[in-house]
Amino acid sequence: MIKLFGWPISSAHYRACVALDLKGIPYESVFMDPDRKEHLEAKYLAINPQGLVPALVDDDLVLTQTMAIMEYLEEIHPEPALLPANPAARARVRGLAEICNCEIHPIINRRVRLYLAEDMGHTPDEVSRWLTHWYGRSFATLEELLASSDAKGKFCHGDTPTVADIFLVSLLSAAQVFDVDVSGFSTLMKIEAACLELPQFRDKLPRLL
Amino acid sequence: MIKLFGWPISSAHYRACVALDLKGIPYESVFMDPDRKEHLEAKYLAINPQGLVPALVDDDLVLTQTMAIMEYLEEIHPEPALLPANPAARARVRGLAEICNCEIHPIINRRVRLYLAEDMGHTPDEVSRWLTHWYGRSFATLEELLASSDAKGKFCHGDTPTVADIFLVSLLSAAQVFDVDVSGFSTLMKIEAACLELPQFRDKLPRLL
Repeated sequence: MIKLFGWPISSAHYRACVALDLKGIPYESVFMDPDRKEHLEAKYLAINPQGLVPALVDDDLVLTQTMAIMEYLEEIHPEPALLPANPAARARVRGLAEICNCEIHPIINRRVRLYLAEDMGHTPDEVSRWLTHWYGRSFATLEELLASSDAKGKFCHGDTPTVADIFLVSLLSAAQVFDVDVSGFSTLMKIEAACLELPQFRDKLPRLL
Repeated sequence: MIKLFGWPISSAHYRACVALDLKGIPYESVFMDPDRKEHLEAKYLAINPQGLVPALVDDDLVLTQTMAIMEYLEEIHPEPALLPANPAARARVRGLAEICNCEIHPIINRRVRLYLAEDMGHTPDEVSRWLTHWYGRSFATLEELLASSDAKGKFCHGDTPTVADIFLVSLLSAAQVFDVDVSGFSTLMKIEAACLELPQFRDKLPRLL
């Protein structure tokens, strides 16, 4: 059976869970304790030398990076599809997902927050302003892109969830953990509400843990 | 004809150029001046509300985010392939590309450097340490992942270039612009040298401009 390494409050681990659960692929979660730095111990580094989560392990196959994991799941287990069929629509969905994956998540994630605080000496308030700044820029863009699009339906693209919704909900959830005010992004909030009607999005939501 | 918006020293714009050139797809580059903030003017924001580069425009289709652009090009113009055929191999290549795309580029890019300097008051030396820290961590992982892999050939995956090589070369090039010492990453340097034998990688290399 597939093993998924991570920890419950990781938004990246959550994304992989939702993709697996939406596709109905069975897996076993293997949780590590980030405060005890279990992800930097030799045992895990032998699996994923990057020391990041998640890692999806299926026999001798080890996959990292949530977008690569989702593309793989889409290829080996196409239904239900998490990407639309048409290349231009797929590019739209991937573009929305990558705004979350590249423009928000890497800048606000745990290791960057720790580096700002511990190595650069920033106060909690300064780290908080950092989070608010980067979230605000990218969420404003996502709000504009989604609110103005004919392709948007109940979800980011039409009326079934795609990888874009998974990325979006993971970052909205993290924003709320960090007390970043997202209430002004009404389109994003509506999409999140639609996603959270589905148990696959709701059951492992980091903020509930 | 496809229009590609960007500027010559952007490593993200470079990645889209190499993908288009490897596939032999004709396009016209539209350069903006980042110092004059042309990417934040209404004319470009109407095309790409995110104000980031590149944007690939083909009639009324507007694509952003280099990974989404490359996946689109692969789907509409499959040969020469920039991803291997096998799902596990595709996941490996996408994972390597995403380490560059998510773990390095967003943290070291222009807008983050400007924010550290102008909004947070960090000195050029402190910004330089920031770059060296994040490059060092991820390049060390990439070096380990590539040096230990049987799948590596002349390039990151086998003996033909993939999206992983395009991402890697774009970031090695940027590292050298920032005076980050990459000479210790011998596997990465060998792959870069193999790529730079190809005119599609060499002709628009940001550091040469």
